[in-house]
Amino acid sequence: MTTQQLYEQIQQKKSFLSVGLDVDLTKIPQHLLATEDPIFEFNKAIIDATHDLCVAYKPNTAFFEAYGLKGWHSLEKTIQYLNQKHPEQFTIADAKRGDIGNTSAMYAKAFLQDMDFDSITVAPYMGKDSVEPFLAVKDKFTILLALTSNEGAFDFQTKKVDSVELYKTVLETSKTWKNSENLMYVVGATKAEYFTEIRKIIPDSFILVPGVGAQGGSLREVCKYGMNDKVGLLVNSSRAIIYASSGEDFAEKAREEALKVQKEMEEILNK
Amino acid sequence: MTTQQLYEQIQQKKSFLSVGLDVDLTKIPQHLLATEDPIFEFNKAIIDATHDLCVAYKPNTAFFEAYGLKGWHSLEKTIQYLNQKHPEQFTIADAKRGDIGNTSAMYAKAFLQDMDFDSITVAPYMGKDSVEPFLAVKDKFTILLALTSNEGAFDFQTKKVDSVELYKTVLETSKTWKNSENLMYVVGATKAEYFTEIRKIIPDSFILVPGVGAQGGSLREVCKYGMNDKVGLLVNSSRAIIYASSGEDFAEKAREEALKVQKEMEEILNK
Repeated sequence: MTTQQLYEQIQQKKSFLSVGLDVDLTKIPQHLLATEDPIFEFNKAIIDATHDLCVAYKPNTAFFEAYGLKGWHSLEKTIQYLNQKHPEQFTIADAKRGDIGNTSAMYAKAFLQDMDFDSITVAPYMGKDSVEPFLAVKDKFTILLALTSNEGAFDFQTKKVDSVELYKTVLETSKTWKNSENLMYVVGATKAEYFTEIRKIIPDSFILVPGVGAQGGSLREVCKYGMNDKVGLLVNSSRAIIYASSGEDFAEKAREEALKVQKEMEEILNK
Repeated sequence: MTTQQLYEQIQQKKSFLSVGLDVDLTKIPQHLLATEDPIFEFNKAIIDATHDLCVAYKPNTAFFEAYGLKGWHSLEKTIQYLNQKHPEQFTIADAKRGDIGNTSAMYAKAFLQDMDFDSITVAPYMGKDSVEPFLAVKDKFTILLALTSNEGAFDFQTKKVDSVELYKTVLETSKTWKNSENLMYVVGATKAEYFTEIRKIIPDSFILVPGVGAQGGSLREVCKYGMNDKVGLLVNSSRAIIYASSGEDFAEKAREEALKVQKEMEEILNK
């Protein structure tokens, strides 16, 4: 998928919502636990109920790995289902990987080639040669952590590196890497006031924004400072949508929550 | 396992070698490809041939994930085999994980609890609340990336943060985190001259040292600057040992390579 296609999908659906699939077996409806693959059944129901309201799905790999082999199988089934039934969706492996070159190449193979995700989140700490193997995969995107949504973001990311904050140094440096046109970035919704400065460095890139919903970030604030003339934002919500109800009506309630966010996005886009 | 037990094992075996299990199906002996689980068969043979010469094994998760469900199954079988047959070995999930709190907790569950690894490597970029869920697991260790062995380490890690290099800030800050006694650190062998400064900040912690062997780091240099009075080093070698031969004699040749390293370590320890 190209960013132009992603932009067109955003215009068509009047939505730039990404739905996070963080499936916790202790939180999903009881009746699904009797099925052969509760994680996949849950995801499938959520996807079927929300796909016309969002443009991206973001499975969080930790929540699959936490169930071992079964969980990994559910992850493979989930991405297969998305690629077969909803190929228009932008898919994000929220994996936060990153290692020396030959190892990053293996992660890129696993997620971008074999499982055929459109993108993967990557941590920048190990620098250029840990990220470039992901960037080398054609027609795929590497979503680099810049300024994350959590408290710990203030431990290092906002510290000044040679008088410039680390997250800005990460943004600036990443632009010099090979195939940097395949970069997107993670910036947390809980840090909306930082978007103005960030947009000065990366005016055109798409930004994946976690932290709206359960983590407390404001959609309007993010859009005010972070939106560019091709939208340039994918705003993710996980828990607030997928756990809107823990009853048999979970998919219906998830749709209601997704619809609320989509309506708010439509209003913003119409302005 | 406690660090005291690890130290005792080091004394007994006169070795502080960690063997990295980075299994690439294009590099292992052809005859194994006919078996049901070539990755596990390869690991099992390597482990059986080297376990008396090393104190730790470090499966690199990327190399398992690259083979999807089958690879994940091989990872589970490898750690089960280690825990059952060689419970004295210190096991390291080289996973480079790290995410917001509830997600890191899921990774901790997967690797430290369910799979029962003794430790996991974790990236520090997201700060305190992304690392503490790992540290909270009792009797387990979190091996934090400080200064890695690759070129990209110079992109951010050695940059000055408020006039102190980022990797030193990571080391200093991590000491203030809850259960920081469960921390170990990654410092690349290719950066031996940095060990003196690093030991001033973390004199007592164990350091996992990748980069000896294929990446070119020197064992003697690392020991000269990095060893403390309880050794405090786990020096890892992956490719140089496990791919010593691609023939049917691969396990035997791996033992020969491991023995060379162990002998060099024994000499250093005797001094």
